Order: sequence, then C-alpha cells, then structure tokens
Amino acid sequence: MRIDVALSPDAVVPPPAVAIAVDVIRATTTIAYALAQGYAEVVCCPGVEDARVAAHEIGPAAVLAGEVDRLPPPGFALGNSPREFAEGLPLGDVLVLSTTNGTRAVCWAASTAELALVGSLANLTACAAAAARGARALRGSVAVRCAGADGDPCLDDAYVAGRLVAELSAFLPEWQVGDTAELVRSAASAYGSEIEAIGRSSSAISLREHVLFDDVRICARVDAVPTAIEAVTLPGGRARALSAR
Amino acid sequence: MRIDVALSPDAVVPPPAVAIAVDVIRATTTIAYALAQGYAEVVCCPGVEDARVAAHEIGPAAVLAGEVDRLPPPGFALGNSPREFAEGLPLGDVLVLSTTNGTRAVCWAASTAELALVGSLANLTACAAAAARGARALRGSVAVRCAGADGDPCLDDAYVAGRLVAELSAFLPEWQVGDTAELVRSAASAYGSEIEAIGRSSSAISLREHVLFDDVRICARVDAVPTAIEAVTLPGGRARALSAR
Repeated sequence: MRIDVALSPDAVVPPPAVAIAVDVIRATTTIAYALAQGYAEVVCCPGVEDARVAAHEIGPAAVLAGEVDRLPPPGFALGNSPREFAEGLPLGDVLVLSTTNGTRAVCWAASTAELALVGSLANLTACAAAAARGARALRGSVAVRCAGADGDPCLDDAYVAGRLVAELSAFLPEWQVGDTAELVRSAASAYGSEIEAIGRSSSAISLREHVLFDDVRICARVDAVPTAIEAVTLPGGRARALSAR
Repeated sequence: MRIDVALSPDAVVPPPAVAIAVDVIRATTTIAYALAQGYAEVVCCPGVEDARVAAHEIGPAAVLAGEVDRLPPPGFALGNSPREFAEGLPLGDVLVLSTTNGTRAVCWAASTAELALVGSLANLTACAAAAARGARALRGSVAVRCAGADGDPCLDDAYVAGRLVAELSAFLPEWQVGDTAELVRSAASAYGSEIEAIGRSSSAISLREHVLFDDVRICARVDAVPTAIEAVTLPGGRARALSAR
C-alpha cells in the first residue's frame, strides 16, 4: 500500500484505491466554495462544448461555469473564480463546470479509483482525513493527481499535494511513500506560508497579469470549507462532485 | 531566459541552450569518477547491444561498462558502480558505458543543446559554474534533465536538480525559474544532508537490497571531482563525455 503523487496529467502512477484530484488555482477550490455556497452538486465536464450539452440535458436547474484562457466562455453565467461563490446564494441547483485542466483531473479520479476526492487547501484537512479513512477501509493505495498547467507540472498543485502527503503519511504510517510524494512533501515543508508557495507558481503569476490575484489569496486559505468532496463518474467522461456526508 | 527542470525522460521543457543530464545513482557519478581515474573519454550508448558494437568499432582501447538490472551484462569488464573507478588505474583509454536510464539522458542532452553537461553531486559546483558561464555566453536557457527511474521521476535526481537550481539561480539572478525548478529547489533545501535526501530514494532502497549501499554513499559525496564534464553527440544516438578544459 502506497502514497503516490502524479505531478501532471500524463504521469503514470499505480492504480489507486483512493484518488485525490487537485487543481488549487482554481477549479478544485471553486468546487469547494460552490458546494459550500449551496449548490447540490457540481457536474465536471472535460470540455466547454460538453458542458453546454450537459447543461441542456439537466435543464433549468443547471448553471454554466468555467473558463477558457482564464475567462468565462460566451453564454456561461459564471467563470472559474472561487470569489464568485464566496458569498450570496447559488443561481441554481447544479453547477456545470468546465476548466482547462482541473475538471479533467476530477473526471480522471472518478473513473479510476474506488473512492475519488476533490482536494484543495480550502478543504485540506477534511480531504486528507477522508482519504486516509478510505485507504484503511479499502486496504489500498492513495494517489494524488495534480491537474498541472497545460500538461506540465505546476508549483501550486505540487505544493497542495505535498501538504496532503504530509497529512496522509501521519494518518497512514505503514503506507510506503513514493519518490514524487516524498519530493513534494519536502518541498511543501520549505515554505513559511501557503501564499508564499502558491503565489510563486506560474498559475498565480498568470492570474496576476489578468488582475485576478485576489483569487490566489482565496485559493491559499486553509480549511475554509470543512467537508470532504467525493466525485463519482458519469457517462460521457463527466463526473459529479458532491459534499461527503 | 529560463531555468527549467525535467523530472523524467518524457517531461517536456523548452529547448535549452545548456542542458545538464543527471543520474546521480549512478551513471553520471560513475562518469565523473571514471574521467577522474584517467579515462580520456566515456562513450555513452543508449543500449547494451549498441555498447558492444561501439566497443568493437573502437578496438582495444575500449573498456565495456554498464548494467542491466543493476549488474554488469555478460562480457562487460565493469559495472556501473563509481566504486570501481574510485582508485587504481583505468583498464584502457575509452570507457564505453550503457545503463538503464542515465546514458540515455546524456545522449538526449548532447543531441539537444549547444552546451551539454554531465551533472552529479560529485562535480556539483564545477557543473553549475560551467552551465552558468555557458548560459551567459549563449544568452540562453538552462534545462536540467533527470534520468528518472524507468520513466518515472526519482527523488535522488530531483534532489541534485534542486541543488543545481540553487547554484544556477545564484549565478543567473535574471533568469526565470520554472515551476518544477522552484519545486525541486525548495525540496532540496528541506534536507539536512545529501545522504539523507538521496538515501530515501527508491534507487537507493533498491541498491540496498542488492548490497550496493556503499555506492549510494559515494554518490552522496559533494565535489569529489572538481571538473565540469561536457558531452558531445556522436552518430547513432551516442554521446562522448569528457572533462571540460
């Protein structure tokens, strides 16, 4: 039984019993805030066109959200900013989300593992605890899948993976820690604060250029949402994310 | 101008002016010790059969060395252990080397960059200084290519990459540091010693099982070989490594 980390979408890890998808800037943080705001579920779609189809199938309950090149596509009610979900009421029951990297990582996790979780700093402790409980119950491995940035590893997701590995290895001391998991755990321990770490990432620098740096500050907040989030696979490569009971 | 790190053979980085190949346990350490012992050059081959062909072409000056599954293939005079080169005299002028991961990383560097270097802890300072001088002269980017372990990232190479990034970013303060480069630099800073870091890697654990842990101790020694090592590409996907003047 192992704890592994995949730093990018193409990285290969042994098939896990428990998978955690991480896209801290911004999709998995946005999912956490959307569920906390009151959406009953978030349907994650692998692409923008598919999100439009999904919203049409779901009907009036669906609210389209997401981004292409950091901004909402035409006709989408909302973007991919956790700020849009930090206060006020939801616009419907079902958020239909498509983002460049993050929703694909959630769909991968849901289709691969017996227990799939959506992880971010926003629900770090609840996510790690649920993953450890799941790994013990299933007597299986845990893999953290970083969404990365356009296929490459990114510092922000790697940092959150490192924080998750630190928690997981405390909960699961008998589990072997893989080389990449050890690497990101060490890297995470070297930063004095969450904003120091994820603020240096290319994702954060890119948002700063788009005057969206406040999003990074929200993404750096730890445990603002005290619930684990499970993802289950849906037909057509989609996944449904909802708060774990 | 950037400083990038590729953690595994398949990782994509922007084409660099200067490339550093790292397989600290053990190929790039072995190359450093072999040149220090007195071999005039090390011909790196992408596979065992190709090494036999290369040795035949070179004639009596050639000494075959390398490993498959950590041990020397039949007919090879030497393995891939830096201990075999730590004392005594060379067995010929040209070492012909083939290893599972490392020689391929050297061949990649030689065929990709204007200046290709062979890096390890054994020649850390000399390697970083030569890379920084080269990047300034060529006004170009530096990429560290980790050999990894059977296609996956490994902790030992990532640690050395982190040490190199720390040196390079001090020599080249205007160069942008990529996300993976920042990640490994932070991770490297979290360890108290070289042996603590690389001794935890799956490569080290595997050598311990083969009663070769003394190799790991040698691979952890910093600056035992005070020269930079350049690699130039040869026909057939091979590369020639030799001490920089």
